[in-house]
Amino acid sequence: MKKGLLISFEGTEGCGKSTQISLLTERLRALGHVIRMVREPGGTPIGEEIRYTLKHSVKNHAMTSEAELLLMNASRAQLVREVLRPALEAGEIIVCDRYYDSTTAYQGYGRGLDLKLVQAVIDFAVGDTRPDLTLLLRVPPEVSAARLASRQATLPFIRDRIEEADQSFFNRVSQGYEALATAHPERIQTIDASSSVQNVSDSIWSRVKPLLG
Amino acid sequence: MKKGLLISFEGTEGCGKSTQISLLTERLRALGHVIRMVREPGGTPIGEEIRYTLKHSVKNHAMTSEAELLLMNASRAQLVREVLRPALEAGEIIVCDRYYDSTTAYQGYGRGLDLKLVQAVIDFAVGDTRPDLTLLLRVPPEVSAARLASRQATLPFIRDRIEEADQSFFNRVSQGYEALATAHPERIQTIDASSSVQNVSDSIWSRVKPLLG
Repeated sequence: MKKGLLISFEGTEGCGKSTQISLLTERLRALGHVIRMVREPGGTPIGEEIRYTLKHSVKNHAMTSEAELLLMNASRAQLVREVLRPALEAGEIIVCDRYYDSTTAYQGYGRGLDLKLVQAVIDFAVGDTRPDLTLLLRVPPEVSAARLASRQATLPFIRDRIEEADQSFFNRVSQGYEALATAHPERIQTIDASSSVQNVSDSIWSRVKPLLG
Repeated sequence: MKKGLLISFEGTEGCGKSTQISLLTERLRALGHVIRMVREPGGTPIGEEIRYTLKHSVKNHAMTSEAELLLMNASRAQLVREVLRPALEAGEIIVCDRYYDSTTAYQGYGRGLDLKLVQAVIDFAVGDTRPDLTLLLRVPPEVSAARLASRQATLPFIRDRIEEADQSFFNRVSQGYEALATAHPERIQTIDASSSVQNVSDSIWSRVKPLLG
């Protein structure tokens, strides 16, 4: 039985994920692969309801970080079982614009939730549905801040919360990603994303190509 | 600073919790205590949205057990921080019609989710907001089944799911409660709830009264 691939993209705001995801999926589709792109929270009818609750709560700033983490992972648990696992069984290549490493980086390191508890919730939500490859796009914090300032929100409700956060928050998120990359060197490949779009795309392709068999 | 009390009621369907909660809160109010009754999921604006998602999903049977557990605990995390902790700080007596032991009994033992992972999610949701006293109303499974059949649903969406469950499910839930009572003898008091309403009420009162100081 052919098994698909699960590839996640990670990085701080403005690291160029969206552009690189488009370029990668174009290349993969040109080779005849079936691609599925996902973005959390959402991707299932239940996940979309959860997304609504998360977005809505941002407006009145009423939600606790703990409830937010659990809602994110409820959406994720549903996505994993309703979409990701069947797609992987069918041999598709799934490209995730953020997956659970974002939760560890933003809510664990960024917001200061207990890392072991955050990990326990993630483990419960995803089980053994782990990325085959995670591409961590690394840009200096000041590049991230500048790119962020120059464009409209593409991740609205995460952005809404992040807009309130200060530079120390971004620094903690970056540190979180570095810690994850150190802890999972076999899975997480760091990419220098401050280079040209084409260079970054080629770096990414060199990491993905060997997995295509 | 005066601290309040957190009392939870647990038991299988038809164990008589609702009646006993009414009788207990009457007694406590007659003594001048400020009582707050809560029932999960819900109890906060965010919790009510989550409740809607949970109820709605029951109709089309689309939700995974994992997503259900995480949503329940998202509602709980919000309730704990928005309602329970401030009420306890204010010295109120909170009476919960089910709290996290239900999750362990129904979703851990009943549905077979991994108990350690279930516990990890609960720990994340509640932190140190634990009941001072849990009253486990124990009735023989056949009494529970008969009482259940004779009345309309009072916990609609839990009931909806449970109606599909067979007797072995109920047996596992009962075993779960027994295991919890054995593991936490200082907190969980088992009450023989097959006796008369007045006898049961007196048993409960004998457990609650010493906590009132």
